[in-house]
Amino acid sequence: MTPFGEDRLGRQLGFLVEIDKLKTVLRRTPLTDNSRLENSAEHSWHIALVALVLSEHAPDGIDLSRVVRMLLIHDLVEIDAGDTFCYDPEARAGEAERERRAADRLFALLPPEQGSMLRLLWEEFAAGDSPDARFANAVDRLQPLLLNVSSGGGSWRTHAVTRSQVLARMQPVRTGMPALWRVVERAVADAHERGFLR
Amino acid sequence: MTPFGEDRLGRQLGFLVEIDKLKTVLRRTPLTDNSRLENSAEHSWHIALVALVLSEHAPDGIDLSRVVRMLLIHDLVEIDAGDTFCYDPEARAGEAERERRAADRLFALLPPEQGSMLRLLWEEFAAGDSPDARFANAVDRLQPLLLNVSSGGGSWRTHAVTRSQVLARMQPVRTGMPALWRVVERAVADAHERGFLR
Repeated sequence: MTPFGEDRLGRQLGFLVEIDKLKTVLRRTPLTDNSRLENSAEHSWHIALVALVLSEHAPDGIDLSRVVRMLLIHDLVEIDAGDTFCYDPEARAGEAERERRAADRLFALLPPEQGSMLRLLWEEFAAGDSPDARFANAVDRLQPLLLNVSSGGGSWRTHAVTRSQVLARMQPVRTGMPALWRVVERAVADAHERGFLR
Repeated sequence: MTPFGEDRLGRQLGFLVEIDKLKTVLRRTPLTDNSRLENSAEHSWHIALVALVLSEHAPDGIDLSRVVRMLLIHDLVEIDAGDTFCYDPEARAGEAERERRAADRLFALLPPEQGSMLRLLWEEFAAGDSPDARFANAVDRLQPLLLNVSSGGGSWRTHAVTRSQVLARMQPVRTGMPALWRVVERAVADAHERGFLR
């Protein structure tokens, strides 16, 4: 399994090779040029930059470096569990259990204390209860909106999503990055007017 | 140019939409499953994780959060300048000037003091002189080696690269993350033995 050996460094390198697979997990959101769907690895890069650039709009008391780490690892479980389309309730049933099993396998590739640390960070993101996780979740919701708006409707248009579905999905922005809520409302109203959203 | 307006937040959002283009810049390294070439956005994600996971092997005095930020933005200039193949001396002529012009345009999309801050971080990476930049450069060199080894030769094989070219290219690992040098030497010797490297 690990061509770099089973010692501490070998396990770290094995994990780093394994996570290359996240680049093959496709999301439903297209790139802004509509050339193809986005994958979860480049999405993770993009949201880390969203967090860095918009950090001044985060509520006080956020640890930005922690948020960035959280965002960089938050989708790793999709290597096994796949990306679940957020507007598909049937697919979402069982998502949590699939992702838990994925976390069991993936984080165990690392030396134990390092794997546990990253797993805790992932669990914090998934629970969405801490200030850092609330901001991270807001960023993770905002980015697909930017892509859908910029690509002329994106996954909203392809999957005939409604305005109220998007507003419900975007609620974490309201709580985790309230300064951006007016941007969301304006973008959704505009997308509806242009026929990108039902 | 910026559908989100020309105020501070609008410029930040415009920048975040613009950098989506990094996902369409292809590198020469294939993914570990050999399904396609890697793009510079997902590469940036991957090296940020390499830095996080291997941080204990960094020399003392590294600011890991700064290194991660540096890695997340280090390839943005490729949106205009393209990815320059590291083993192609002709392509590399003029690379610095192309990248400088790209930085002039891209970082100027942001509010001035924010753009300057990121540009300074990019310049620090490009110069490679500070401890943070040395570690960041080491990480940026090590990751393609992991992919090439795992994909059965990758860009080394496709472009008939020699062992001495790779060892020269990997020197930043020797200085920026010396604990990993034995991994590089072993990987290069093994790749040569298996015929992946001339």
